[in-house]
Amino acid sequence: MPTSDTATLLIHCPDQPGLVHDVTGFIFSHGGNILDLEQHIDPLGNLFFMRVEWSLEKFHLEKEEIDSRFSILGRRHQMWWKLHFASQRKRLALFVSKESHCLYDLLSRHEAGELPVEIPVVVSNHEVLRPAAERFGIPFHHFPITPANKAAQEEAQIALLREHGIDTVVLARYMQIVSPALIREFPDAILNIHHSFLPAFVGAKPYHQAYERGVKIIGATSHYVTEDLDQGPIIHQDVMRVSHEDSVADLVRLGKDLEKTVLAKALWWHVMNRLLVYRNKTVVFS
Amino acid sequence: MPTSDTATLLIHCPDQPGLVHDVTGFIFSHGGNILDLEQHIDPLGNLFFMRVEWSLEKFHLEKEEIDSRFSILGRRHQMWWKLHFASQRKRLALFVSKESHCLYDLLSRHEAGELPVEIPVVVSNHEVLRPAAERFGIPFHHFPITPANKAAQEEAQIALLREHGIDTVVLARYMQIVSPALIREFPDAILNIHHSFLPAFVGAKPYHQAYERGVKIIGATSHYVTEDLDQGPIIHQDVMRVSHEDSVADLVRLGKDLEKTVLAKALWWHVMNRLLVYRNKTVVFS
Amino acid sequence: MPTSDTATLLIHCPDQPGLVHDVTGFIFSHGGNILDLEQHIDPLGNLFFMRVEWSLEKFHLEKEEIDSRFSILGRRHQMWWKLHFASQRKRLALFVSKESHCLYDLLSRHEAGELPVEIPVVVSNHEVLRPAAERFGIPFHHFPITPANKAAQEEAQIALLREHGIDTVVLARYMQIVSPALIREFPDAILNIHHSFLPAFVGAKPYHQAYERGVKIIGATSHYVTEDLDQGPIIHQDVMRVSHEDSVADLVRLGKDLEKTVLAKALWWHVMNRLLVYRNKTVVFS
Amino acid sequence: MPTSDTATLLIHCPDQPGLVHDVTGFIFSHGGNILDLEQHIDPLGNLFFMRVEWSLEKFHLEKEEIDSRFSILGRRHQMWWKLHFASQRKRLALFVSKESHCLYDLLSRHEAGELPVEIPVVVSNHEVLRPAAERFGIPFHHFPITPANKAAQEEAQIALLREHGIDTVVLARYMQIVSPALIREFPDAILNIHHSFLPAFVGAKPYHQAYERGVKIIGATSHYVTEDLDQGPIIHQDVMRVSHEDSVADLVRLGKDLEKTVLAKALWWHVMNRLLVYRNKTVVFS
Repeated sequence: MPTSDTATLLIHCPDQPGLVHDVTGFIFSHGGNILDLEQHIDPLGNLFFMRVEWSLEKFHLEKEEIDSRFSILGRRHQMWWKLHFASQRKRLALFVSKESHCLYDLLSRHEAGELPVEIPVVVSNHEVLRPAAERFGIPFHHFPITPANKAAQEEAQIALLREHGIDTVVLARYMQIVSPALIREFPDAILNIHHSFLPAFVGAKPYHQAYERGVKIIGATSHYVTEDLDQGPIIHQDVMRVSHEDSVADLVRLGKDLEKTVLAKALWWHVMNRLLVYRNKTVVFS
Repeated sequence: MPTSDTATLLIHCPDQPGLVHDVTGFIFSHGGNILDLEQHIDPLGNLFFMRVEWSLEKFHLEKEEIDSRFSILGRRHQMWWKLHFASQRKRLALFVSKESHCLYDLLSRHEAGELPVEIPVVVSNHEVLRPAAERFGIPFHHFPITPANKAAQEEAQIALLREHGIDTVVLARYMQIVSPALIREFPDAILNIHHSFLPAFVGAKPYHQAYERGVKIIGATSHYVTEDLDQGPIIHQDVMRVSHEDSVADLVRLGKDLEKTVLAKALWWHVMNRLLVYRNKTVVFS
Repeated sequence: MPTSDTATLLIHCPDQPGLVHDVTGFIFSHGGNILDLEQHIDPLGNLFFMRVEWSLEKFHLEKEEIDSRFSILGRRHQMWWKLHFASQRKRLALFVSKESHCLYDLLSRHEAGELPVEIPVVVSNHEVLRPAAERFGIPFHHFPITPANKAAQEEAQIALLREHGIDTVVLARYMQIVSPALIREFPDAILNIHHSFLPAFVGAKPYHQAYERGVKIIGATSHYVTEDLDQGPIIHQDVMRVSHEDSVADLVRLGKDLEKTVLAKALWWHVMNRLLVYRNKTVVFS
Repeated sequence: MPTSDTATLLIHCPDQPGLVHDVTGFIFSHGGNILDLEQHIDPLGNLFFMRVEWSLEKFHLEKEEIDSRFSILGRRHQMWWKLHFASQRKRLALFVSKESHCLYDLLSRHEAGELPVEIPVVVSNHEVLRPAAERFGIPFHHFPITPANKAAQEEAQIALLREHGIDTVVLARYMQIVSPALIREFPDAILNIHHSFLPAFVGAKPYHQAYERGVKIIGATSHYVTEDLDQGPIIHQDVMRVSHEDSVADLVRLGKDLEKTVLAKALWWHVMNRLLVYRNKTVVFS
């Protein structure tokens, strides 16, 4: 990993000849050295997708100027683009309920320096995991949810997230459906972990559904949250073999390992600015 | 592998103490030596499941007598059971349409001696794969299917299968829905390969469905055929990672490797008498 | 899972007809109901292997008597056997150095009730992970190791383990070679996690070795510790795909997920009394 | 997939700013539209790696001129590069011995149109697989090898390969060590399939070695052949779970599925011009 700061551009736009040349010209003309570039087109949609990361070591534009300078080129080619800096760590809110495995997994990665993010808050609808969060020194905020107070509590949550400059929400087995207000506040920035290989077993109790159907593999899926339940763009999925001897309780226990690693991997790509959402799918520049 | 013949009993029944002792007593009292035994109970349903294979080398009951002698014990414990002999090779009919990958895979395994079965016939609704079958010396029977002749053709197929003493039908990418008449003729003995990880993407064009949903894994499922389309007991499943760059054509191409290996593995367990069907699930004694 | 206590017998001996019948006869004659039985023979070595677990709910032998009563049968057939009770939880010592991922993984599983064991002590040659252990309420014992004090410190470790009635030692990324004295104290009861797919990359810095060789998969292996370094009986292995873009640091980071899950799975089988060691291999009754 | 022809450049060279811009400038200035570009640097070695594929539909350089025109730019940056055209199908010689599984797998993929190559010859040191090759209409050449005739036979093989314009040799379970003369004739163009996860179990009888060591996974590795046996750059690897119940014969049977799919996948990348060899490793632009 480079020790100096880097900039990353994620781009999609209608395809035409010369796009890579133009973008790399912008970088080269200001003294940037490209570290990593991936580009492909979707021939069906005539679409151009690109991720480019370059070193800012000898780049002679101020970081604050880059986006506006790039916008001339971007607008000319009708680009959607997003600029990120490696030094600007994402600020995460972890939403949890009662299950600790994803929470501990993320907090211990964070403590070990594996996950270059800030985690200013853990949010929960239950008190159960307060000790878990606080052991790792992360403030824990309890928002008990009832049908009566749900809207008000979500407003309070949003206020808390704003106050802490949160840019990414991780639903780490948060067993509540989040509101459209929250989803609109964090477009393509709320990651969920669903405990099945979507689109199989949407909705509640997927391990019970899997047991009933007698599947030989179980899975987990991390996706961005949209207003359609369990229908958002899939980021990452993995599966595990199970057998006729496994009870629902076994599936629940075994599945936790999938949930932890699938969520952590999806979050890694999000944090590394390797994800681009287009037409309810993700492009993973891995 | 033992060179002498072996017998295998598959059993399920209500659980009670002493069942293993009774069954192994039957085998031991006639001079059999057990090679492999797996037994477990389903505590929810109070059900007993067992597979036992023993050497017939010094067994002093005639093979023809075993089943009727065992039936005394079997009836006493309200058992469902099935007796197989390793020397009695399964007789397969392979049903195909136009795609050759599963057919070649099975025929080349058979030729190499990997698959201890007889394959007296290949059946198809198209002429396309006649050369493929005939190169391996397997008679090819063409039954063109139209809405008008479907019932009559299936009767003719059943007659052919009876004539050849077929006991197992393998739908090796046979792109027709088989009739209830055929299904009833071969209960728990028609294996299908579906090109998705069921229950995701049932029905037609699963790779198109997978592409549309933007999944990150594709799968294949082999199951016994029942009268509910794609709802039969699942025998084996496997998956493979795909990416945003894969077109539908790529998924189709990549998925063939899954289809081949998943079907071959499911068939292996069927042929080795390692499968037991109960409540629309399989027990795989692997 | 049954709520009443269960007994488990692990057995190997020379094969002969009637063994399963005899063992199940012992269980049945005292009122035991078998929950799970797996038996197979190794035809090359004429060896018999078996695991049987039965409910003690209506078993009318005292638990203290079972082993001695079984010994009559056991000796007659020249059996090696081991008797376990589900109610008798294993008592673990976790040995760690500076890396926290396996420690946190095991402690969080334990706290969540996933791992039915006692963990009276964490032992380390460094102070680094004291806070990690103590946050989960587990006493932490620091034994700094130098070439000069190594023998004495290991004696002190053994004394500590005896004092706490430890029966299983887990080397959860303990970066020291343990002494023959400790190994003899815990035969087939010290689990290690090695960060490669053994036998590839034995010894130090396996990820560096993997990087140099340009492998496309990395792995982790959990094995019982014997006096030959990295040569003990393998319990479990898993692998993960890597690419030419992954640096040694990436391999180290990615490999942690393998190390955690492979060690936890191996430990699960050990704790569930599903492992039998024979001729430097494990039989995994999974 | 684009219907018109495409050109692909594989490049490595010392890193410096502006390289992507220069290469894409060459393409753009002659009217090419980039379909796919992947570039990364190895920060340790200060090395630049790139693959770019572009449409020749509106490219206004003759195909014959591209390489020499590019060489001005290439030499200026001390590049190693290789130019390929999609329309120029690779010409394969398949080398086999007695095992048919890889041969049938490749021939059936080829027949189904999955593998866009020419296969003018099958070469073998045994007659066994002549019928297999000839059924698919591929000429079969038998070169019996003895210690006395080995050098002469390999010369004859090389002459045959030259005569047929072969550019890629696939050792599809060819159980002979190929000579330095052949290896020098086809640098980075001889693919082998080794039946273990290298570097574990180099040399003869890897499944026997795996059985002896008691591993829980077996593997297969496809690599380019160099003069050091089993030490060439690894292209692809995969593994499969096995158990204590699997005999050497089971490992051999199960491993065939790995060998087939690993070799086919490695060959796919070779054929698609997605492989670059550097310092005894492969870069896989997948």
